[in-house]
Amino acid sequence: MAVYTDVGSEELGRFLDAYDVGRLVSAKGIAEGVENSNFLVITEQGTFILTLYEKRVDPADLPFFLGLMRYLADRGVPCPTPIAARDGQTLRTLCERPAAMVSFLTGVWLRRIEPNHLAALGEALAAMHEAGQGFALTRPNDLSIRGWRRLVTACGARADEVEAGLASELATELAALEAAWPRDLPRGVIHADLFPDNVFFDRERLTGLIDFYFACNDFLAYDLAVCLNAWCFERDLAFNATKARVLLAAYARRRALSPGEIAALPVLARGAALRFLLTRLFDWLNQVQGALVTPKDPREYLHKLRFHRAVRDVGAYGLP
Amino acid sequence: MAVYTDVGSEELGRFLDAYDVGRLVSAKGIAEGVENSNFLVITEQGTFILTLYEKRVDPADLPFFLGLMRYLADRGVPCPTPIAARDGQTLRTLCERPAAMVSFLTGVWLRRIEPNHLAALGEALAAMHEAGQGFALTRPNDLSIRGWRRLVTACGARADEVEAGLASELATELAALEAAWPRDLPRGVIHADLFPDNVFFDRERLTGLIDFYFACNDFLAYDLAVCLNAWCFERDLAFNATKARVLLAAYARRRALSPGEIAALPVLARGAALRFLLTRLFDWLNQVQGALVTPKDPREYLHKLRFHRAVRDVGAYGLP
Repeated sequence: MAVYTDVGSEELGRFLDAYDVGRLVSAKGIAEGVENSNFLVITEQGTFILTLYEKRVDPADLPFFLGLMRYLADRGVPCPTPIAARDGQTLRTLCERPAAMVSFLTGVWLRRIEPNHLAALGEALAAMHEAGQGFALTRPNDLSIRGWRRLVTACGARADEVEAGLASELATELAALEAAWPRDLPRGVIHADLFPDNVFFDRERLTGLIDFYFACNDFLAYDLAVCLNAWCFERDLAFNATKARVLLAAYARRRALSPGEIAALPVLARGAALRFLLTRLFDWLNQVQGALVTPKDPREYLHKLRFHRAVRDVGAYGLP
Repeated sequence: MAVYTDVGSEELGRFLDAYDVGRLVSAKGIAEGVENSNFLVITEQGTFILTLYEKRVDPADLPFFLGLMRYLADRGVPCPTPIAARDGQTLRTLCERPAAMVSFLTGVWLRRIEPNHLAALGEALAAMHEAGQGFALTRPNDLSIRGWRRLVTACGARADEVEAGLASELATELAALEAAWPRDLPRGVIHADLFPDNVFFDRERLTGLIDFYFACNDFLAYDLAVCLNAWCFERDLAFNATKARVLLAAYARRRALSPGEIAALPVLARGAALRFLLTRLFDWLNQVQGALVTPKDPREYLHKLRFHRAVRDVGAYGLP
């Protein structure tokens, strides 16, 4: 949670002059998102989220992210819609940073996940995958199998500072995944970071998917693997197979999973666990003095990785 | 800017069940206020600010703060109104902290102050002072003349880490102020922290006064002295006598200043400068590792203190 850039109300007012949204009524920096600065902006005509993209986002990726949100929103996916200025542009500049306004979504994210939330999630994820099929731009997944070796190398022997033997375990795991990683599963645009804090609900009803700033092209089933990790473990790190079954069944009702995708789920789930383990490990080992964001403990994902590694088949995820 | 306490949406939903505000629609932690955790909460019936009082606020003071806001709002002062739950209480508990919901005020705070903003400020301050006259509860000003010696002592010789000779200058200044401090000016409830980020505007129109968590009983003119410091210096720390004159004239049109109050302004302004110098100096010398808030440079108020000390009479503030 952070607001990295202080935006004066006078500057914001001038920024809004380029849009057909009426005058500024209120603006609050919001403690949401760890990569960018976000503001809840109320104008005479509505409520919006204004994002200033900070240095961890590559400006070259912004047309992909903003274009995707617009494309998905136009096709009924409940996600933020970028607001075009009068000149038709959605990507503008504020305080010397790339900046965009998107529509405000109602709903809140859940701390306590119930199985019926997984049903809504599975359906929404499948609908997003379907809606994204015609999107013309592409972006590789830098944080999939090809990106992990770089992170393993960057962490190096220091991984053992977190747990003795971890450096060796990571090297072995990476080699195993490189050998077993699928090659020809159905591909498309994936969210790639669909954690509970990126999904809004109004009680049981899913009202929004947010934060598309890791979205990319990859195996569609990899998004399910991320969700198995992010949504199906309890607070004590016990895996809840009921939640997994509900998630996968709801997804498959909307978009059928191929036998290859189903068979690949354990290795994809291992890979997704390794991805979050590696980025958290890297951030843990490279903490910035005075940073606004506290790094997350990487051991949560080490535990999840080991769970998926021990899985015999998709029966562990509640599938027949 | 900070949100110290993470409030889950389920907990927040249950908290709201005690109020007649409809169901939770959205909630965002907001980067506002350095003492407490604040959330912008949207329900079916409106928009509110929820505050969780963190350890720097004495719970025993909360009935004064909340009662004052209610009292002032009922008398037309544009300030947050505490929302009573169904049981009539405005002070409740959330996440084991005292918590209160107040009404949401439109408007934004200004980075670039123009003289006409000072006119609106002066009038609103006088109106607040008038409206507060009948308020029954009282709270001493811990950060007025009686509290400064404790801070001077706590900073001690380490003040010289900020500027050579500062410890001695502070001791001399404190002694001078203790000798010259007025005794019998008109008293009442004051805001005591009316900086630009606590005043909302819609262009020239003042829409709200917020953050009453330093409010107390003291000389009414001390609030003007705080504003002379907080509103009438330019970014380069040059004093803008036009702004001071507009502020004082607008105030006096609503509530006449006595000759004693006018004559006391230079010493009150010195005192107000010393108050913010001392708290900033203390925070600067006692920085907490990993704190979410960056301490402000105390030298800004050292400069302001020296300005007021050099003032010959109220002519420096644009008065005849």
